[in-house]
Formats: sequence, structure tokens, C-alpha cells
Amino acid sequence: MAEGPSELELLARRARDASGAIALAPPRVRTDALLACAEAVERAAEPILAANAADLARAEAGGTSGALLDRLRLDAARVASMAAGLRGVAGQPDPVGRVVDGWTLPNGLRVRRVRVPLGTIGVIYEARPNVTADAAALALRSGNAILLRGSSLAEASNLAVATAIGEGLGAVGLPQALVSLVQDTSRAGAVAFLRLDGLLDCVVPRGGPSLLATVASSATVPVVLDGAGNCHVYVDAGADLEMALAIVANAKCSRPGVCNAAETLLVHEEVAAAFLPRLVAHLPGVELRADPRAAALLPGAVAATAADFATEFLDLVLAVGVVADLEEAITHIARYGTGHSEAIVTEDRRAAERFVAAVDAAAVLVNASTRFVDGGELGFGAEIGISTQKLHVRGPMGAEALTTVKLVVEGDGQVRD
Amino acid sequence: MAEGPSELELLARRARDASGAIALAPPRVRTDALLACAEAVERAAEPILAANAADLARAEAGGTSGALLDRLRLDAARVASMAAGLRGVAGQPDPVGRVVDGWTLPNGLRVRRVRVPLGTIGVIYEARPNVTADAAALALRSGNAILLRGSSLAEASNLAVATAIGEGLGAVGLPQALVSLVQDTSRAGAVAFLRLDGLLDCVVPRGGPSLLATVASSATVPVVLDGAGNCHVYVDAGADLEMALAIVANAKCSRPGVCNAAETLLVHEEVAAAFLPRLVAHLPGVELRADPRAAALLPGAVAATAADFATEFLDLVLAVGVVADLEEAITHIARYGTGHSEAIVTEDRRAAERFVAAVDAAAVLVNASTRFVDGGELGFGAEIGISTQKLHVRGPMGAEALTTVKLVVEGDGQVRD
Repeated sequence: MAEGPSELELLARRARDASGAIALAPPRVRTDALLACAEAVERAAEPILAANAADLARAEAGGTSGALLDRLRLDAARVASMAAGLRGVAGQPDPVGRVVDGWTLPNGLRVRRVRVPLGTIGVIYEARPNVTADAAALALRSGNAILLRGSSLAEASNLAVATAIGEGLGAVGLPQALVSLVQDTSRAGAVAFLRLDGLLDCVVPRGGPSLLATVASSATVPVVLDGAGNCHVYVDAGADLEMALAIVANAKCSRPGVCNAAETLLVHEEVAAAFLPRLVAHLPGVELRADPRAAALLPGAVAATAADFATEFLDLVLAVGVVADLEEAITHIARYGTGHSEAIVTEDRRAAERFVAAVDAAAVLVNASTRFVDGGELGFGAEIGISTQKLHVRGPMGAEALTTVKLVVEGDGQVRD
Repeated sequence: MAEGPSELELLARRARDASGAIALAPPRVRTDALLACAEAVERAAEPILAANAADLARAEAGGTSGALLDRLRLDAARVASMAAGLRGVAGQPDPVGRVVDGWTLPNGLRVRRVRVPLGTIGVIYEARPNVTADAAALALRSGNAILLRGSSLAEASNLAVATAIGEGLGAVGLPQALVSLVQDTSRAGAVAFLRLDGLLDCVVPRGGPSLLATVASSATVPVVLDGAGNCHVYVDAGADLEMALAIVANAKCSRPGVCNAAETLLVHEEVAAAFLPRLVAHLPGVELRADPRAAALLPGAVAATAADFATEFLDLVLAVGVVADLEEAITHIARYGTGHSEAIVTEDRRAAERFVAAVDAAAVLVNASTRFVDGGELGFGAEIGISTQKLHVRGPMGAEALTTVKLVVEGDGQVRD
């Protein structure tokens, strides 16, 4: 192109050029940086809250709705929780330099594979200012620079958080460009962000269907998808029905707006009559959308359409179906599932093993709520998202997901025959 | 779309629908299948060679050139080598079902990550019929179905090889659709292949710049790139010059047409006068394209342009530059390298460590020829290519690169607070 680089490209180049400073530093520097950022965020609580108040006022004036407004809203506890998140990540193991494996060849060559940072991570996200701190924390832990592109709704909040983090980096002598915030929050800017080839080594999009559609149609950079979760709970013929009631209630109701909440319940026909009539009392306020066989046992239910089984409601709505057997449940999940988290409730070991083997998803659970599929809950530490793709990383994405490997081969002058 | 599925889609669906038969089978079945395929290829040597003769005659009539014709050509030894390759992969460890890691959480949940096949692999490749067998072998070892899309030049050869493999699969009771060959070898067909979303879990393109350009502009399926290798050898001030001469000669001349051959030599200015004049005798028949400082020491050299340093010659041509120090070599490689294989020759431990840490490539070598970067040479077993991307797999891609992980969580009714 005849034009010079755009502002976005210049910002990305500065981040990339800064990346070596953290990639090549010893683990202690990354830990110190994270602790300094935590302190800086705490110190900046006042300006962060003031910026957030301005964002909120602007959003309310623009007619932004309740749930979105709630995500945007910060208070003293949420700022403290950002700082705690940075400290938590500071306490996690550092993945950089870890030797994955190694061996010596008959010709004397010493081979090893070593974890190294990806380089520069891009995160494109919606109006949740805490993502600014959370994503920066994982990028720094894994030795990467990060380019953050938030929502226009959270502009002032994001800038205040990023400024605090920049101060934390400066305090330990690291370049502030390691955590760079994109100012252009237009749609065209999002497309340009997703096309920063050669500047971004990996982009993690965090958002709903419209963002994912933009990524699918526009991204030319490598992407790791934090995808939709149309999660199922299957209650097998061999289920402990008390346990099943508790798991379904937890999977649906404990936090219906998140990706690991259950959206469809499948019940084996042998236990449907014993199970479904009892279910209603365990799901207060939940709208049930039932297939004909389930509807016969659930008088208050709405008739489900095929679209209902394909929908991630993210709300107090549950699709319910009765299946003839385990295989029909597996087939149903293969057809409608999004490869996120799928649970079976059963005391039958063979049924559990078959479900675990045959269901193709990031996480498969036996006798546990889908709501556990979360980096923190499963012991991965903090996460930047939950990958529903198969390449690179699947399931919760922690610091290690932001690294790659480098093959190091050391010899004494070996040449190939 | 109003139209029904295309022939290509139907073929891909049949492969996908067959994939469970190998994914869920025990390792022994995959091993037996590979051994049966090896036998079937040996038995089919005659029809394979006859088909290849027909391809060759057609290619020659169409004016196909020497190197391409050589890649297309099979003889009894090459057919035997395909069978040996299948047997070799049969002897490799099976990655499916391997537990990557696991732990028990305080609430009693048992968590483990298990290797599982990707599902259906696509390989799009040029006129090398041996890729048909090699790629099928790695796909089967890792429990995947594979959809193969070769070159029109090798149509008959590929069909004969795939037919033999199908017979091998049939002999152990596996569906022949596990190894499916695409008949449409048109350019439009290649684009359609790269857009089989939801049917192909990963595509590995194997070919030159024009194929890679088609992938970059058209692919919507997940891709792992077997990319270009603009590989460097850097001769440091601390190099053993005898060793350096042998490594440069091997890296350039042992097989100039492959991706791990060296394309650029960088020499530290302190040793340039001692090293470069001696080099010529070690590189018989190699055209040297030298920057001004190197040219002063290489009377017969052509003047190098910036484009020469960016070129993967794949021929007996070497770009040569003199650098002021190690840092200039690192900067040069960052600018012109393709992230494949980069070597330093030095006895200086600090220089070696700095080079290894600062050079961003799939493989970094110290005192060894770049030509070692190959799955077989480095002990990875057979490979389907060498990844120059950072996500999913970097460096030689063996059977494990064709797997993903599944998180299995087992409980006793746990629900989340």
C-alpha cells in the first residue's frame, strides 16, 4: 500500500517491539511486574471509579440495558478483585522457559523443546473493564505483550485501568507499551485489529455471536475462539435421581448467563416418568421447552422447536428432551452441541465410559455440574477464556495457552548424511 | 443454500461419519490397520506403477518439467518405501487415550486431560504420490479419518495408492471411507476443500507459494501451515571455522530443494576475512549473492539485493552478508527469516545462549546443520510437515500434532457454590 502505517499498526508495532523486554526476562521480573500492577490498580481505584462513572452515565444516557450496564459497572470491590486477580496470577507458575521434553540422539545432538511466549496477544472484548486487567495479567505471566481492544462503552474505564497497569510496568522498569489499549473502538477498527498479520501472534475474541461472526468473516490473524456453550446434561437410566436433580438445578440456575450453564436436559425414557415431574420444583422460575415426550410429563412446559435445542439461551430457559437410550443422547449432543461442556449423570460405569469416549467436547463431566468448567474451578488458575476449538488449546485457556514451543538443537558440528 | 450437498461434501461427510470407527478403537486396531495397509500397498505395486506410468506419460505430453516429473515418478523402491513408511508408523507409539495430566480437586472432582483424535484431517498437496501413503499413515496412527486432495498430475497414482490403503483397511474390518481421495482436482475444488467447515477439523496444505496464497485467501477451516524455510546460518566471531565450513556446506548443498536447506549465510565481521575466501571451495556450483562487505571478500560473487535475503531459493544459490555483531545477525533473521530453522556456529556459550533465546523460530540450532530439522532426523518419527506457525504445533508435525485434548471431570454429584 502507498499509505503509511495506521495508528493501530503503529500501536501494535510498539507493543511488538516492547515484547522482547518481558519475553527474555527471568520469571522473577514477570512476577514483580504483576505485583507492581496490582498495587498500581489499587492506588488508582479513585480515577478508575471516576472514569467508570463517566462511562456508565454515557451508557445510560444512550439507553444501554440492565445486564450490559451491570457488566460495565465497577465498584470498590470489583477494583479490589482486579488487583487480587493480578496478585493471583503473580502467584501462578511461570510457563516461560519450561522444558517440555528433551532427548539426545545417537549422533550426539541434544534436542529439547522449550516453552516460549507467543509474542503479542490481541484481545477484543465487550464492555467488561475487568477483562482489561485479567487479560493483561495472563499475557504478562506468559511473557507476552498485549494489545487490548475493548468496547466504546467502556472507553474511559479501560483507559484508566490500562494507565494504572502501565504505571505498574514502569515501576519495575518495563516498557508501558507491553500493555497497549486501542483507542479506535469502531467496527472498522475491529476488522483492522483482526487483520494485524505479522503483528499479532494470536487474537482471543471475547464476546457474543456478532463478534464471533465478525471474527469468522474478517480475521486473518491466528485466533483462539472462546466460543458459545450450548451445554447438555444427560440423565441416564442408571442415574441417581436425587443427584441428577441437584446437578440439573445447579447447571441451569446457579448463573444462567454464562457459557458453562446447561441449556438442554436430556432424560432416558426409562427414568423420565420418575424424574421429570419432580424437576419443576427444583427449577423455580425456569421456562421449560419440552419435546412431545417430555411435555407429556411436564404439564406447564412450552413445546420445544428444533431451534430451541440449538439455542444458547443464557437465561432461565431450559430445553428438555426424552431419549430412547444413551446413543440417542450422544447423537443429539453431536448434532446440537457446541463442543463446550457436556455432562452425564449415571451410576452405570459402562454408560459413563461410553459417554466420555463418544462425546466430542472440550470438557465431558460425569456426575458433576457443567458449571465447574472454568479455569479457576478446575485448578488451571486464571483464564482468558474457554476454547471450544480443537487446535492449540481446548478448554480453559490459562497462561500456558499464550505460549508456543521452540525446538533447541545443540551439537558439536554435526552435519546430515 | 438451496442446493443439496456437493460430491465433495458427501465425501467429507462419509469420512467424518467413518472417523468414530478408528477414533474409539483400541491402539492395537490402528497398528493392525497400518500393517495391513503396508501389505496392501506392497501387493498393489504393479497397479500403482502402471497408474504412475500413465500419470507420467500424460504429464510429459503436457510439458511438465524435470523436478516436478521426478517428484511424480514412482519406481519399485519408492513403492517399497511407502510400505516401509506405513510399517514405521505402525511401530510408533499411539497417541490416542494418552493422559496428558490429571489431578484431584479439594472437592473430590477427578480431572484429567486425555489425548483424542482431531476427527477428520484434510491434506492438500502437490504431485507427490508418496504423500498419499505418508499422510494416511499419520492420520490413522492418531485415530483420524483423512480426506486427501492431491494434484491432477498424480490422479491415477493417488487413486491406486488410496485404493490399496482402502483394501488394507477393509482387511481389518475398518471402513474404507477413513482414507478418502477427492477426485475433483480443479482450483475451484481446492477452494471448496478449504471451506469444508464443520467437516474438516484441520487442513495441512503441502505445497509452494501459490498453494499457500490460496490457503491464506480462501481457507475457513482450521489450518496448520507447512510454511516456507528461509533458513540462516550465522558464523559467529567465536566459531570454529572448520566446523562452520562443514555446516554451511551441508546446510546449503546436501539437498538444496528442501525447506530446511540454508538460504542465507551471515558472518561476523571479525572472522569474515578468514572465513569467506575459504568458503568457495566448499560450495562447488553454488552461486553466491553477496552484500558489499561480503563481496569484497568473495571475488566471484554476484551483488545481493534485499530481495535475495528474502528469497527461499530452493536451489544452489546462497545469499551472504557480513554483520557487525551477533545482535545484527539476530535483527537480520527477525527481518528476513520465516521462522523455520536458524543456526549459529560458535564456541562462545554466551553467544549461543543469546541466539537461542532471541531468535524466534520453530527450531534454533547451535553447531549443527539446519538440515537436521526433520521429524525423522530429530526422533519425532514420521512427519506430515514442519509447522512454521506458533499455534497448535511448531516444528515437525507427527501423529501427536493430529490430536487434541479432552478434559474429563468425574465426580460424585458435586455442584458449584
